[in-house]
Amino acid sequence: MARVVVSVMPKPEILDPQGKAVQGALPRLGFTGVTEVRQGKRFELELDGEVTDAVLAEVDKMAETLLSNPVIENYTVTVEEPVQ
Amino acid sequence: MARVVVSVMPKPEILDPQGKAVQGALPRLGFTGVTEVRQGKRFELELDGEVTDAVLAEVDKMAETLLSNPVIENYTVTVEEPVQ
Repeated sequence: MARVVVSVMPKPEILDPQGKAVQGALPRLGFTGVTEVRQGKRFELELDGEVTDAVLAEVDKMAETLLSNPVIENYTVTVEEPVQ
Repeated sequence: MARVVVSVMPKPEILDPQGKAVQGALPRLGFTGVTEVRQGKRFELELDGEVTDAVLAEVDKMAETLLSNPVIENYTVTVEEPVQ
C-alpha cells in the first residue's frame, strides 16, 4: 500500500477566478501580505502494492486523461508515504 | 517572496462523492490497482517577505477561516520554495 498524490493547478497563463476570489476576500478578512492565490485540485490515490516506475507511469496517465485537463492545467505526481 | 501551499482534504469519516466518482471511472478507463481516491483542494499562496512563524500562524488562520471548512475538512500548511 502506498499513497500517491496528484496535484492539478491551472496553468500560469490561464485565468483563475477561484483563486482571484480568495485573493480578494483575504484583505476584507484582515489578512495582508498575500500577493497571489491560485486554486487547484489535490487527489490522494491509495495504491495496491509497491510504487514502481511502471505504476508511476500509470498514475501519470490517469492524471493526464482523467484527473486534469492538459489544455488548461498542469499536474505533478508525488509519492507521499510508503505505508506497510 | 515565498510560496506557501495549503492542502485541504475531506476528513476521513466524511463521504467524498468526487473522489468516489474518480475511483469508479478508473477501471472503466482500464486503470487498476487504485483502492481509494480522495479529492481535495490545493491553494498556492505567494507571500510578500519572509516566511516567519508569525506569517505561518497567519496562513494557518486563513486556512481555518476562509480556505477550509473545519467541520468537514482537514488542512495542512507547507512552505514550498523560498524564492529570492
